[in-house]
Amino acid sequence: MRKLSLLVLFFCTISNAQNIASPSKNLILSFQLTKEGTPSYSVQYKNKTIVSESSLGIKLKETTSLDANFKIDSIGQKSVNEIWHPVLGEQSNVKNNYNQLKVSLSQTTTNRRLNIIFKVYDEGVAFRYEFPKQSNLNYFIISDEKTQFNLTGNHKVFWLPGDFDSQEYPYTESKISEINTDNIDRNNGIGLKSIAGKSIVQSPLMMKSEEGVYVNIFEAAVVNYPVMHLDVAPEKYQFSSHLVPNAIGDKAYLQAPCVSPWRTIMISDDARDIVSSKMIFSLNEPCKIEDTSFIKPMKFVGVWWEMHIGKSTWDYAGSQNAQNAADGQLKPYGKHGATTENTKRYIDFAAKNGFDGVLVEGWNTGWEDWFGNWKENVFDFVTPYPDFNLKEVTDYAKAKGVNMIMHHETSGSVANYERHLDRAFKLMKDYGYTAVKSGYVGRIIPRGEFHDGQTMVNHYNFVAQRAAENKIMVDSHESSRPTGFNRTYPNYVAAEAARGNEFNAWSVGNPPMHETILPFTRLLGGPMDYTPGIFEIKMSHYDKSKTEQVHTTLAKQLALYVTMYSPVQMAADLPENYERYPEAFQFIKDVAVDWQDSKYLEAEPGDYLTVARKEKNGERWFLGAITDEHARDTQIKLDFLSSNKKYKAVIYQDGKDADWKNNPKNYDIETIEVTSKSKIKLHLANGGGTAISFQPIN
Amino acid sequence: MRKLSLLVLFFCTISNAQNIASPSKNLILSFQLTKEGTPSYSVQYKNKTIVSESSLGIKLKETTSLDANFKIDSIGQKSVNEIWHPVLGEQSNVKNNYNQLKVSLSQTTTNRRLNIIFKVYDEGVAFRYEFPKQSNLNYFIISDEKTQFNLTGNHKVFWLPGDFDSQEYPYTESKISEINTDNIDRNNGIGLKSIAGKSIVQSPLMMKSEEGVYVNIFEAAVVNYPVMHLDVAPEKYQFSSHLVPNAIGDKAYLQAPCVSPWRTIMISDDARDIVSSKMIFSLNEPCKIEDTSFIKPMKFVGVWWEMHIGKSTWDYAGSQNAQNAADGQLKPYGKHGATTENTKRYIDFAAKNGFDGVLVEGWNTGWEDWFGNWKENVFDFVTPYPDFNLKEVTDYAKAKGVNMIMHHETSGSVANYERHLDRAFKLMKDYGYTAVKSGYVGRIIPRGEFHDGQTMVNHYNFVAQRAAENKIMVDSHESSRPTGFNRTYPNYVAAEAARGNEFNAWSVGNPPMHETILPFTRLLGGPMDYTPGIFEIKMSHYDKSKTEQVHTTLAKQLALYVTMYSPVQMAADLPENYERYPEAFQFIKDVAVDWQDSKYLEAEPGDYLTVARKEKNGERWFLGAITDEHARDTQIKLDFLSSNKKYKAVIYQDGKDADWKNNPKNYDIETIEVTSKSKIKLHLANGGGTAISFQPIN
Repeated sequence: MRKLSLLVLFFCTISNAQNIASPSKNLILSFQLTKEGTPSYSVQYKNKTIVSESSLGIKLKETTSLDANFKIDSIGQKSVNEIWHPVLGEQSNVKNNYNQLKVSLSQTTTNRRLNIIFKVYDEGVAFRYEFPKQSNLNYFIISDEKTQFNLTGNHKVFWLPGDFDSQEYPYTESKISEINTDNIDRNNGIGLKSIAGKSIVQSPLMMKSEEGVYVNIFEAAVVNYPVMHLDVAPEKYQFSSHLVPNAIGDKAYLQAPCVSPWRTIMISDDARDIVSSKMIFSLNEPCKIEDTSFIKPMKFVGVWWEMHIGKSTWDYAGSQNAQNAADGQLKPYGKHGATTENTKRYIDFAAKNGFDGVLVEGWNTGWEDWFGNWKENVFDFVTPYPDFNLKEVTDYAKAKGVNMIMHHETSGSVANYERHLDRAFKLMKDYGYTAVKSGYVGRIIPRGEFHDGQTMVNHYNFVAQRAAENKIMVDSHESSRPTGFNRTYPNYVAAEAARGNEFNAWSVGNPPMHETILPFTRLLGGPMDYTPGIFEIKMSHYDKSKTEQVHTTLAKQLALYVTMYSPVQMAADLPENYERYPEAFQFIKDVAVDWQDSKYLEAEPGDYLTVARKEKNGERWFLGAITDEHARDTQIKLDFLSSNKKYKAVIYQDGKDADWKNNPKNYDIETIEVTSKSKIKLHLANGGGTAISFQPIN
Repeated sequence: MRKLSLLVLFFCTISNAQNIASPSKNLILSFQLTKEGTPSYSVQYKNKTIVSESSLGIKLKETTSLDANFKIDSIGQKSVNEIWHPVLGEQSNVKNNYNQLKVSLSQTTTNRRLNIIFKVYDEGVAFRYEFPKQSNLNYFIISDEKTQFNLTGNHKVFWLPGDFDSQEYPYTESKISEINTDNIDRNNGIGLKSIAGKSIVQSPLMMKSEEGVYVNIFEAAVVNYPVMHLDVAPEKYQFSSHLVPNAIGDKAYLQAPCVSPWRTIMISDDARDIVSSKMIFSLNEPCKIEDTSFIKPMKFVGVWWEMHIGKSTWDYAGSQNAQNAADGQLKPYGKHGATTENTKRYIDFAAKNGFDGVLVEGWNTGWEDWFGNWKENVFDFVTPYPDFNLKEVTDYAKAKGVNMIMHHETSGSVANYERHLDRAFKLMKDYGYTAVKSGYVGRIIPRGEFHDGQTMVNHYNFVAQRAAENKIMVDSHESSRPTGFNRTYPNYVAAEAARGNEFNAWSVGNPPMHETILPFTRLLGGPMDYTPGIFEIKMSHYDKSKTEQVHTTLAKQLALYVTMYSPVQMAADLPENYERYPEAFQFIKDVAVDWQDSKYLEAEPGDYLTVARKEKNGERWFLGAITDEHARDTQIKLDFLSSNKKYKAVIYQDGKDADWKNNPKNYDIETIEVTSKSKIKLHLANGGGTAISFQPIN
């Protein structure tokens, strides 16, 4: 019956309706104009409606909106099937295979033209608004975007509240009908919260229907446009675009010809299709950097976790009051982490263990009053504290063959950062730094702007571009979540932009399921600097009174190096902790960070993930398997291995009694010989994981 | 009776009241706390109340305001009489002579401390709020300032509407009771108007009582604080501070210890005391530039007026539509002013006539769509148009001994300018530019900010500081009006920040009285780049159909070089026009721009001004006399001249039949011999003026 009614609908509206199918024919996107001349679309997957008729449109400020009275001028179709090669990535060949429908509309009341471009991939659909060059639409201000996603069931959904300044929330798993941001626990360690309402969530939004169809709403190529959050009408299973406003409530300032980001809906009955999809990246512009030779994968250690656990501080004087600076009272108090001596200790450790880089946070003046004051001029990004000798440190690192990673905390004062950016990058070049970790903790300056607004989106992209000019890689924290821009600027190697491992040190932390959902959400848009590798799981190790802990086993911390893709991976724990567990640490030393290929073997959002990856320019494979709070037993076929080779497999797994809460450091290491015909049984503890390295035996 | 009641008041409140007199004793400022513990002050001049009891206070956001419940902790007094030496100025020695009262208050309800510092000069009073370092006031947000100026009569007032984005209005002369911004002519040529209400005016606000006392309300040292406009209660003759808000309505973000700008009230029965006052400058911090040798006075010509009269354009393609740029349609259309060839013509003219510099506007890409679109990325400040060869031009200028003046139009996109500032200054240094004219035409980006808000005040000052680092002088246009900051950063040599001569080219223009009020208002805070020297007064010279004209005689244009002080003065007209009037042009070639001393001989705001100035490092004197729409005859004693010298005086005066409207180019030049005992009769036509050079005869 359902199928029949669909056909009837189709024939009734033939003149204003168009269909386009995915290469596999499983997905069909239907476009049509409503009788008001409003563009709309719907999506069928394997003959089932996943998105019912949903309207499209753009509200303009101070002029007629582009949301009704359209007629179709022309229709264009094309098919694309190509391979592109990311500079760094989960795989060296990315297939970009879709069928395209371009609908050229004109508004009968204004004669303005608007195009909507649909791309239908096997694993999902994407569409964007295109504003062609035309005489009566040049500069315009978007006051709102009216893109609907009308779903057809009360799916299970993993959501974050729609916060314009932060994505650092744990996920809430509920039915669509139960979404209500009032119900989340606000005691979650997030310093700056700007939740925009009770019925607004973030994208990427991962869902699963009762029938077992996975649906993911996201966007790609957010460039010169704000981030799209999603208003929810829970009872109707309806989501609609909510663009992040600027200080005066406007959404985007554009000039035709231009385009919106892509709105994406991934759909499959196999979760692996979604977690492995490169659709978001393929929807971005190709690489704009000519010489990409400076973009290199990196494993690094750093003066960082020791601040999170309270052993040392970012600031030099410990007073957290720069009023004292004026009086010459900015004196060391003995707990400053970023000293020359301490940094050399990390450099020695990196050199000894084959790490590429050392990050140092707190090296520069300003940390006395950086946080929470909405202060504009905190950092100058070039002045070290008196106990950090920049030349001595960088000379030492160079002699040891280690790269230093610069740190630029902006405290949200982007205006100040942009004023100093050329100088900051010049200092980096003068001292040979090739990568910067940037931070955006705090309310944005220009005041009134949000982390997710157009101004800030442009800022992050601008920094990537300036960095590229200077052959510098960027790993930004507290920025808006990426949407594949690292295809275009592959020096934007990673971002945080989600709740990272650090929350486990000093807050309620990240529940064991956390790492099993991120690959279905945050990581679809780009690598995350999650900072895995914490071996001393419980903070009581440092202070008996502390109850905070990492919500995984130690073995799972190893597995994260494989499941949580990033070309820059930190070994986040203290050198002295790694030195106490040299056997486990061996996996972090061994694991690759840039990949020839990746095979997602098992995937269920919020429950588990198993992935195997082959290193680029080598024959080693690495496998990571993680689970949520439930223990898991599974068997993995090793048929991804080369059929003509034998491998030594070193298996880092949860011990028999391991448990993330009660016995997280219980692990076993087992070495066996395997081939592509082998199968391995894996046992993952509650909150546990398994990491395996496969080394060919000549 | 009035005197008696004043005394009674004084004795009743003795415990909470303090008086302080000017060195001359003519001015007395009285401070007292009201019974609510609100600070207040009043001012007497020659035993007459000029400012009656007016309250003081600061409203804070999200915390108890600093406007009541104060008690006096202590009182401090001191007297200062010192001389300082401006790098460039109207005189080489500036006397800073005042008596100070510092009232230290604490708020009984919060224990917060607030100081109010009063300085009483002979020509006026000044006071500021000081927020001392204290444990319970560190970061704070000013939501409003509650400073009253309660005047005691319905004075004549010269006012501009309280516009947060522009001061480029003609003055309205009215009674205080008649102030109403609804009544001004909006067809005044101003592109961006942001008038904040019908009862709000700008400072400096020049007034005159019926008894002949001149009163001027202004401010000094606006640093890290918004501009103060003045709310008016016309029927009460009351003005009160109206700070310019930022995008979200806040006024200022401060951190103790810090200070507000000075609020100033100049008072005298001799208008010359006000027009000659250096109080505003003295209230600013001393010079912060160590090596000031790069700061030099300058006369210049430029590719500029020809755009205003329509002979050429700033933009290369003439389409005013950068949509075309993308299509490669940015093609020259033959009217671009800033070509290599045309610039060389100006360089030749400058070299031949002894000018120091040549300004070129429109040399760089972006002018196709720079105006009115609130577009963020218009200019990059480093890319010349294809027909402007930067190297060829600068080499040519260098060979001729002429300095090039850079031009940076920001189109209000300050965010973009700051991003490019280091690069822009680097280009200048690479090519030997020593001065920059900057422009801020259009709505500000960051969007929601105003030209006069704290963010922008900080920007202008920041640019001056960065320029100083690079040994560059700044002449900014469309910035907020200066308040003496060029004492602190004397490389901030001039600003426009008022209605300049350019309005005469393409709008209703500037009425003849305009130049007679500016020295009492705008110029109190710093030099103005008014761009005098227009010889072809009527635009019909270029196009018969045009009716616009300069509202002065030609002789007055010469006099403006003396009356309108600036260490950078443009000879704004076209070279070919100067070549047709070589005798008159001689004055512009001769006149100095930096001064040993200045003598204001006659002054009446809005009516006339006569000033004589002695050049620095020389013995020549120059005199400028101007009048408003009324002809004027006067006699000047030359007793300012050295008593032991004879002088050749060349008098450039209005011809017998001269009249700004009907016969503006009618002038006479007379050469006579004079001594300090001589008197000269001057005849100034309607809208006319006289310029005189005095050259010692060996």
